[in-house]
Amino acid sequence: MMAHMLTLYYTPGTCALASHLALEYAGAAYQAVRVDFATQQQRSSEYLRLNPKGRVPALVTGQGVLTETPALLQYIAQLFPRSGLAPLDDPFLMARVNEFNSYLCSTVHIAHAHRMRGYRWSDDAQAIETMKKKVPQNIAECFALIEREMLAAPWVLGERFSICDPYLFTLASWMKSDGVDIANYPKVADHQRRMAADPVVVKVLAQQAAS
Amino acid sequence: MMAHMLTLYYTPGTCALASHLALEYAGAAYQAVRVDFATQQQRSSEYLRLNPKGRVPALVTGQGVLTETPALLQYIAQLFPRSGLAPLDDPFLMARVNEFNSYLCSTVHIAHAHRMRGYRWSDDAQAIETMKKKVPQNIAECFALIEREMLAAPWVLGERFSICDPYLFTLASWMKSDGVDIANYPKVADHQRRMAADPVVVKVLAQQAAS
Repeated sequence: MMAHMLTLYYTPGTCALASHLALEYAGAAYQAVRVDFATQQQRSSEYLRLNPKGRVPALVTGQGVLTETPALLQYIAQLFPRSGLAPLDDPFLMARVNEFNSYLCSTVHIAHAHRMRGYRWSDDAQAIETMKKKVPQNIAECFALIEREMLAAPWVLGERFSICDPYLFTLASWMKSDGVDIANYPKVADHQRRMAADPVVVKVLAQQAAS
Repeated sequence: MMAHMLTLYYTPGTCALASHLALEYAGAAYQAVRVDFATQQQRSSEYLRLNPKGRVPALVTGQGVLTETPALLQYIAQLFPRSGLAPLDDPFLMARVNEFNSYLCSTVHIAHAHRMRGYRWSDDAQAIETMKKKVPQNIAECFALIEREMLAAPWVLGERFSICDPYLFTLASWMKSDGVDIANYPKVADHQRRMAADPVVVKVLAQQAAS
């Protein structure tokens, strides 16, 4: 068996896809281990020892376990600098990358989470229902801002492909279930189509589906 | 008048304090401009042209305007590498920095925001009240995790002071108003005390108070 330096814990349909794609784009030696949300495996004592947050993604490295998508994405880009996945030595462009990834994790992902995980912020069943109702409006506003201000096209940074692109692909793939039509955002829709056709994306999605 | 390379737009009491402190720790030439939330200045057409998100912080640089605290913090560290505010060339330690800052922006700040800004996620007044009720529990859980797993002490990374420290100081300063007693978290409380006594923090807080 091949020795793997990195092990990604992921669940299909979650934001762990962004890191899974980045590992593949980087040409990293890694294994991907599925965490089964259906049986609450993320809450098992075994998994909580690995990641006390009880979430995915988690990346096991030779130095320790890392969590949080923006951190994993930059780590992968920095560990494999020749992959060119981030403008590591350009402070301003790197800030653009982090600005984008921060917005996705702290605004877009959070807006989305209020559809299925409202119990995180209220114990009241009716209140949770009212959160679900507002999700389409919030997701629509997020992607309007991304379309207008943040997606340079063809890639997030313009001509340069980066760790922002698999992250955008991942969160934009949730729009339909959040009740928002991606066709209203032509640049986002075009980005999504090109990513979905990319052999790396096809390979990783097939791998996750077969797991 | 001195030419300033950087202008930080901030509001007292917001997470913009983290970037304000980082600029000061970095020894940057900057000016700080107060945005008045009381008169909804962050929604004025003038400010929205600068930052379409209508939030603080925003950092005006010679290359463009940057937003999102984790992005600003890393940008400041990268722009002033001799300040040693981030382990820029160590991918794993840098990932620890980003993991910490991502957790603060996407989990801790969001938990806090449900006390005063629940209207972002529900249009229902009663639902918003139920969100407020859950804030102490969520903030307590966040800081229990920080205390147990994330704050190496004396600083977030251990012996090394970094951009994580002003960010933690900023968010921990909200605990009291969120109904959580910082004394329950001895390492966080000690961190807060040492930061509050730091001349840089004293100077910036006095500057913000006088603005």
